[in-house]
Amino acid sequence: MVLSNTYHLALRPGAAIVEKMGGLHGFMNWDGPILTDSGGFQVFSLAQISKINDEKVTFKSHIDGSLLDLSPESAMRIQEQLGADCIMCLDQCPPHDWPMEKMTAAVDRTTRWAARCRESHRRTDQALFGIVQGGTHRELRERSAEGLLPLDFPGYAVGGLSVGEEPSAMYETLDYTVPLLPRDRPRYLMGVGRPVDLLEAVLRGIDLFDCVMPTRNGRNATVFTSQGMVKLRNAKHREDPGPLDPECDCPVCTQYSRAYLRHLFIAEEMLGPILASWHNLSYYQRLLRDLRTAISAGRGAEFRQAQLARWNQSV
Amino acid sequence: MVLSNTYHLALRPGAAIVEKMGGLHGFMNWDGPILTDSGGFQVFSLAQISKINDEKVTFKSHIDGSLLDLSPESAMRIQEQLGADCIMCLDQCPPHDWPMEKMTAAVDRTTRWAARCRESHRRTDQALFGIVQGGTHRELRERSAEGLLPLDFPGYAVGGLSVGEEPSAMYETLDYTVPLLPRDRPRYLMGVGRPVDLLEAVLRGIDLFDCVMPTRNGRNATVFTSQGMVKLRNAKHREDPGPLDPECDCPVCTQYSRAYLRHLFIAEEMLGPILASWHNLSYYQRLLRDLRTAISAGRGAEFRQAQLARWNQSV
Repeated sequence: MVLSNTYHLALRPGAAIVEKMGGLHGFMNWDGPILTDSGGFQVFSLAQISKINDEKVTFKSHIDGSLLDLSPESAMRIQEQLGADCIMCLDQCPPHDWPMEKMTAAVDRTTRWAARCRESHRRTDQALFGIVQGGTHRELRERSAEGLLPLDFPGYAVGGLSVGEEPSAMYETLDYTVPLLPRDRPRYLMGVGRPVDLLEAVLRGIDLFDCVMPTRNGRNATVFTSQGMVKLRNAKHREDPGPLDPECDCPVCTQYSRAYLRHLFIAEEMLGPILASWHNLSYYQRLLRDLRTAISAGRGAEFRQAQLARWNQSV
Repeated sequence: MVLSNTYHLALRPGAAIVEKMGGLHGFMNWDGPILTDSGGFQVFSLAQISKINDEKVTFKSHIDGSLLDLSPESAMRIQEQLGADCIMCLDQCPPHDWPMEKMTAAVDRTTRWAARCRESHRRTDQALFGIVQGGTHRELRERSAEGLLPLDFPGYAVGGLSVGEEPSAMYETLDYTVPLLPRDRPRYLMGVGRPVDLLEAVLRGIDLFDCVMPTRNGRNATVFTSQGMVKLRNAKHREDPGPLDPECDCPVCTQYSRAYLRHLFIAEEMLGPILASWHNLSYYQRLLRDLRTAISAGRGAEFRQAQLARWNQSV
C-alpha cells in the first residue's frame, strides 16, 4: 500500500488538481491500494500554527506562508478529492510529555473530530479509520477507544506513539491499547517504525504500519541487512564484490555489489538511493512475510526470540 | 549502447576496482553493448592541464587536485580494465577556432597517438575506433584520415565537431569527411547532438552518435515532442491531463499526464528526471527508427524534408 501525504498534496499540486486527474490512482497511474493521512500530523509538526480551536486549525503553509485552514470537514473533503482507498480522521497528536490535562483535552477533541469526520465523509468506496490517542496513559487510551468505538469505523489506528517516548513505553501502551480495538478490523500503528518495533507490535496484534525509515535510510545510504545496519558510504565497502545482504533475494542483492552501490552514492547517481530503498523495502517485506508464516504455524514467540537474538548479536 | 566515461571512472571509483568487479558489464550488471571514450575530452575540458607534450598529458583531478597522467598507452590500459565493447583512441580535440598551425599539430599528434593506441591495445574482444580530427578544414580532415586509414581500425569516429562551430559548418565538414572513411565500418560522430543534427548526419553516412542532450534536458524538465520542445515547469502544464507527446507510444506518454510530470519536478521527486529522460530517449530512438525505415524504402530525402518542415513549424 502506498501512503500519500495529504498536507503536502493539498499544498502542492492541490487536491482539486489531483481530483481532476482521476484522483491519486489516476494521477500516479497506480492501481494498488493507497492510504492518505489526515494532514494533521504535518500541520502540527511542519507548519506554523496561528490558531487552533475546536472548529479548526489555522496554519501557515511552509512553502509560501499563505494562511490555510484544516477542519474535520475539510480533511474529509480533501481526502475524498485525493481518492485513496483508506483515509484517516483528523486527530490531534500531542507530544508524549504533555501534562495530563492537555492530553485529556486532545483525546476529547480527537473524539469530537472523529464524529464530525464520520458524519461528513460521503464516499462509500473509501475506508475511514478512527485514531486512538492518549499518549502512554492507560486511562486516556481507554477513554479514547470508548469515544471512537460507537462510531463503528472499518479500521482503527493507534496514534501518538513513536513521538519521543521510550520503545518500552510504546510496547506497554500497545499491550493495553490493541485489545481495546475490534479484532475483526485492521489495527494500524501510525508512524512506526524500526524492524524491531514492527515485530513487537505485530505480536501485540497490529496489522498495519507506515514509516519513512526504509526509504529515508535508503536515500541516505544506510541499509538493513541480516548482519545489521550497513552504511554504504563507508570506505570498507569500496572493493567489496559481495551483495548488501547475502541472505536477501531481492533484485538489488542478486544483481549489484556493495562496491557498485557505494560508487553510485559517492558519484551522486540517483540510482544509489533508488536501489538502497528498494532493498530496504524488501528487507521489511521479508521480515513481515517470515513473521506471518511463523505466526500461522504457531511459532510467533519463537520467531521473536530468534530474531531478537540475531539483532542483538549484530549491533 | 551505454557510453561510460573513462575520465570520471578512472578518478572514481578507479579503473582497477571496476576491473576487479568484472569490468563495466559486471559492475553495472549490464550485458548490452558499452562504449568508453578515451578520457581525453574531459582532461582537455574539465581538468587543469599542467603539462602536455607528445608523450602524455599531465593534469589535475577536478575532484581532489591530485596530479595524473594520460597517454595513449594508459588510455588503452584504463579502457581495457573498464572492459567496454567499443573503446576510443586518445586524441587531441581542439577548439574550433584554433589557428591553422595549431590545428595541424593537433591532427598530427592525434595520428601519432592513434598508432600508439593501436600498438598497445591488447584485448581482442574490444573494437578500438580511430578518431579523425581537423576542425572545419577539408585539407586537415583529409590529412587526418590519410594518417588513420593505414592503421585499419574496425570503426572510425569524427571528433572535433559540435565544439562551437555553426551547424552549417558541421554539416559541410561531414559532407567531405564521411566519404573519406570506409563504408563497411561504423562511422561515429562524437558528442552530437540535437535531433536535427542526427537527421542531417545520418543522411551524410553517420551510423553512431553520443550526446548528453536527451538525459540532461530530461533532468532539467525539458522534453522533445512532435510539437516541439516542452518546458515542464511552465505553469501552463499545471492542470494538463494530456501526455508529453500525443504521437509518442513510450511508457511515459502512455501512463502519465503533463500535470503529474510537472508536479514531480516542482516537488523535487527524482521520478521526474527519470521519466522525462526516458521519454527523451524514446523520442530519439523513434526518430532514428523512422529514419532507418525511410532510408530502407529509399525515402530518406523526403523524410528529411517532412521532418524539417515539422520542426520549423513547431519552433
